Amino acid sequence: MFAQTPEPPYYAVIFTNQRTPGDAGYADMADRMVALAQQQPGFLGVESVRGADGLGITVSYWRSEEAIAAWKANAEHSQARQQGRGDWYAGFQLRVARVERAYGMNFQGTQ
Amino acid sequence: MFAQTPEPPYYAVIFTNQRTPGDAGYADMADRMVALAQQQPGFLGVESVRGADGLGITVSYWRSEEAIAAWKANAEHSQARQQGRGDWYAGFQLRVARVERAYGMNFQGTQ
Repeated sequence: MFAQTPEPPYYAVIFTNQRTPGDAGYADMADRMVALAQQQPGFLGVESVRGADGLGITVSYWRSEEAIAAWKANAEHSQARQQGRGDWYAGFQLRVARVERAYGMNFQGTQ
Repeated sequence: MFAQTPEPPYYAVIFTNQRTPGDAGYADMADRMVALAQQQPGFLGVESVRGADGLGITVSYWRSEEAIAAWKANAEHSQARQQGRGDWYAGFQLRVARVERAYGMNFQGTQ
């Protein structure tokens, strides 16, 4: 599913991560974090994919750096990140970026 | 596989895309485009994941906007993009973003 983002500028958090084997509560946590993020001020959308080898990329989009900082400070999100470091992820890279240009196309009438 | 990017700032091209069913030469083209991108001045790395539903996210990292523009103008890349619009993708979103902050962790000695 594509995120329906507004005209730039806005911000992207690019979270590339490698899952450990097994679920261990991961799917429930991930669903909960998306639901929680959607309630945050300044949340614009999210795109998330995981491959068969356990590598995942989740890109969340935000109105401002302040919105990202508030989401990072969220208590439930902080606790999930802490557990993620021990249980769910073998490693990750997180990048915060300012989206400057964007365009898209839809060739088949669905999006 | 995580891209081994330098300290920010640098640029990210976030390409979210939905594949059409079937391969139709896609895998060969995708391999060729990665090999070609790696030869471009200013290319820093790429992270790419595709899910079972055909949704994919590829993030390529570049030294500058100029490097991205030169890659966009590459003749073989241009031809692949044109074919992609008709054959390989049901739709896509492309965002160009300036990476401002980045950090990562590796919990299991591999990356």
